Amino acid sequence: MHPEPLEHLVRTLARLPALGRRSAERIAFRLVRDRQGLVNDLISALNDFQQQVARCTRCGAVTVREENPCLLCRDPRRDDSLLCVVEDAADVMLIERAGGFRGRYHVLQGKLSPAEGTGVQDIQAAALYRRVQQEGIREVLLALNTDVESDATAGFLHDALARLNVRVTRLALGIPVGSGLAYADAVTLSRAISGRQDF
Amino acid sequence: MHPEPLEHLVRTLARLPALGRRSAERIAFRLVRDRQGLVNDLISALNDFQQQVARCTRCGAVTVREENPCLLCRDPRRDDSLLCVVEDAADVMLIERAGGFRGRYHVLQGKLSPAEGTGVQDIQAAALYRRVQQEGIREVLLALNTDVESDATAGFLHDALARLNVRVTRLALGIPVGSGLAYADAVTLSRAISGRQDF
Repeated sequence: MHPEPLEHLVRTLARLPALGRRSAERIAFRLVRDRQGLVNDLISALNDFQQQVARCTRCGAVTVREENPCLLCRDPRRDDSLLCVVEDAADVMLIERAGGFRGRYHVLQGKLSPAEGTGVQDIQAAALYRRVQQEGIREVLLALNTDVESDATAGFLHDALARLNVRVTRLALGIPVGSGLAYADAVTLSRAISGRQDF
Repeated sequence: MHPEPLEHLVRTLARLPALGRRSAERIAFRLVRDRQGLVNDLISALNDFQQQVARCTRCGAVTVREENPCLLCRDPRRDDSLLCVVEDAADVMLIERAGGFRGRYHVLQGKLSPAEGTGVQDIQAAALYRRVQQEGIREVLLALNTDVESDATAGFLHDALARLNVRVTRLALGIPVGSGLAYADAVTLSRAISGRQDF
């Protein structure tokens, strides 16, 4: 019932994560109101993004074409012996923002998911094994998510890495900081207890 | 800390309604993962939108350049004597979707807002008065929002329209359908009581 180019924009925006049909409509109508500024800026930002943003050929994090390998891979102050494995390039940003990690990264670009037909050839596992063998890595921190598929992916990688004579660690599971026992589910609480730390 | 073109896209996306910095980042990283398809589609949808979408010169609703006045203005089955005034072009869609209204529309493209410096010259009020005088309109339905500024805008338009010998109505205020008294705030409940209708 919208004019076709409006409807087309709504449908395209609704394909973005975090945006449902309703938010996409709200955005499209805002763009109707403010066409000069925002639409031009969006087109230009997307064009720049498309032309300049790239994945680091070494770790898979986000970088620009002119900086490849990325700044994190080239930073001489970081610890080459510690490699953090994440599912998505966005996770690199989250960990960097959290602070406290001074090693290198390796982005899988996904996880094993029978439901979505994602197998080991679809994640950057072979490249991970190669890096472990060639880059003098002594510890691999598997910083994956904690859903069932991510857990299975971590287990799979752990088994494969165990054969490469490297220490494999994972993120601690437990109660979130600033939260309370009452808000934790039973599995989290149980993991917090079994993984209890000295005070 | 992001590569510049990624950060620029995040900042531009965050200017859209319904998107905070966090959602904008999530979208940008999704676009990193799926660059070919989605980025191209977005650029193309935005370009089409920019080139084709227009505002109806008569009512201010959204239309395409080739259809101006818009389909709603040209539909011979609609009632020319009843004019529905809304703040935003998106409201036309909401009312059409709700069904039950068979008159014409007039979009103000805003509301009176001292806080944002929006005065009567910034909304399509003069065009509204002109239409009322020239198009044989007998009733103006002020379908504005119910916040303080929208209410003041409705009051202002009511006073101005009263001089033009036209009936001015507004949307009923009351309890939402499918909701309960317990969920209504006191003002809404009080308006539902004072505006009570025969059973």
